[in-house]
Amino acid sequence: MTKPVVDLTIVGSIGIDTIETPTEKQEEILGGSVSYACAAASFFSHTGMVGVVGTDFPQEFRDTWSNMSIDLEGLQTVEGKTFRWGGAYHENMDNRDTLFTDLGVFESFSPELPEDYKEAPYLFLGNIHPALQLHVLEQTRDPKFVLIDTMDLWINIAKDDLAKVISRCNMLTLNESEAQLYTGEHSLTQAAKLLLELGPEYVLIKKGGNGSMLFTKQDIFLLHAYPLDTFKDPTGAGDTFAGGLMGALAASGKTDKKAIREAMVYGSIVASFGVEEFSLERLKQLDRDEIEIRVAEFKEMCRI
Amino acid sequence: MTKPVVDLTIVGSIGIDTIETPTEKQEEILGGSVSYACAAASFFSHTGMVGVVGTDFPQEFRDTWSNMSIDLEGLQTVEGKTFRWGGAYHENMDNRDTLFTDLGVFESFSPELPEDYKEAPYLFLGNIHPALQLHVLEQTRDPKFVLIDTMDLWINIAKDDLAKVISRCNMLTLNESEAQLYTGEHSLTQAAKLLLELGPEYVLIKKGGNGSMLFTKQDIFLLHAYPLDTFKDPTGAGDTFAGGLMGALAASGKTDKKAIREAMVYGSIVASFGVEEFSLERLKQLDRDEIEIRVAEFKEMCRI
Repeated sequence: MTKPVVDLTIVGSIGIDTIETPTEKQEEILGGSVSYACAAASFFSHTGMVGVVGTDFPQEFRDTWSNMSIDLEGLQTVEGKTFRWGGAYHENMDNRDTLFTDLGVFESFSPELPEDYKEAPYLFLGNIHPALQLHVLEQTRDPKFVLIDTMDLWINIAKDDLAKVISRCNMLTLNESEAQLYTGEHSLTQAAKLLLELGPEYVLIKKGGNGSMLFTKQDIFLLHAYPLDTFKDPTGAGDTFAGGLMGALAASGKTDKKAIREAMVYGSIVASFGVEEFSLERLKQLDRDEIEIRVAEFKEMCRI
Repeated sequence: MTKPVVDLTIVGSIGIDTIETPTEKQEEILGGSVSYACAAASFFSHTGMVGVVGTDFPQEFRDTWSNMSIDLEGLQTVEGKTFRWGGAYHENMDNRDTLFTDLGVFESFSPELPEDYKEAPYLFLGNIHPALQLHVLEQTRDPKFVLIDTMDLWINIAKDDLAKVISRCNMLTLNESEAQLYTGEHSLTQAAKLLLELGPEYVLIKKGGNGSMLFTKQDIFLLHAYPLDTFKDPTGAGDTFAGGLMGALAASGKTDKKAIREAMVYGSIVASFGVEEFSLERLKQLDRDEIEIRVAEFKEMCRI
């Protein structure tokens, strides 16, 4: 059997997380931006993962990814310990404190793309150091659409590198506070205007439970979040959203505004499932029919 | 000339406000829930105002309302001072501190409806003591649709009265933190379920710049807020939204879900203009064409 062609390459962090919410604590669970993003994308397209784990990484976690048909040729296993992260959410679940960070093998990560990943038409540069994101971008062969995510740390300590890689991407995604931090503008529309000046055609600002806003120089698209009765763990929601978006966009084969709006809906809905449980627990049980049912319900909720 | 029939009666507070934002301070400006709500409703329907002012109330403010064709037959003028309120917004414009409250003639306000207001098919019970809201409701003759607004104060000190009047209304509106305060539920979908148990067919939760959510026992409608480049003063935005909603609904003559969703869009857009300036400064310059242009633009922003 020939290996299926990778439509979408995703690079990012892989971590073993310990997470405390006001009601629950889970230790040593599967996390990391590329894990959430690939899991979400896998519902729609053939997705290749680029990341690093240590020799202590459990086979069970690897199996979780394989069972979701994520391509693992780009996954490096390096002698040493896998990146570990601990976080505790406040009562409102909107804010969290980092309890510990132990970089392990992630500290010297140099992402290398397998040959067929280089040809993938869609690329998602998940949240890692912008110099590494640039290194990935330089290995690719003229992708059709590149999305870049980042975080406050890189805005604070590597803004020049970040600006350089953003200028070469089609879409930048960041959350509300990061957009404000990057630009010094409280107004998101003003912040988006400045971010568009960096070069990307699209700026996607994530507002958690309050949805997201997609800006171009010409227009704005406003998307609510699917209203959940309860949710257990918001970790990775932004990565799941962006991964689902890119998976759905890759499946469409398109890059126009209409396709992007539709892909955002799919990303948002997959993320709404993801936060119902810790880690990938909900996503690994999820099927495409459940996604389609919630997408239809959600569209009805947004119909004026 | 015969006096036009009032389609919509609105009751609420009238105040002379002093407002500080991080960049500006305005003293002795026209405020109050019924002032904002009637101004917004006046773009769509013939609206009657029920409120009280003191003998110190400036003729200029009265003229502002008259020029917007608001019916003032229900406005009482009582010997004494008009209600005054002062507030200061924090840097993020989301939170504010009350600097002073001087009730004046508002302290002994007893709202009385002129004869033709009692027949108005639409009624908006703006934020005043729930016992007074009930007193207004009892003067009306079987209105088609009644909206009630409230605030944290009445939830804290007059919850039984509030529950009684809510049970007799078609729609309850409150903001996110008030819904959480009333029910003790952090999740808005859970809070809405409990509030629907009080009797209203609709619960409308306002989230400021993050839009609003309309709940029934069967479904949910999600509406983003129109994204503004800059805004000067959020005071009265919720009253403007609700007033515009009720004005547009009264103009439609309907009370079904489709008409309510459409009316919410109009309310939201009028509110987006209102916050561009202090007091009614923007609304008194606004015309229906500007509203329609922004409504069309906004619908395009929400189209999936």
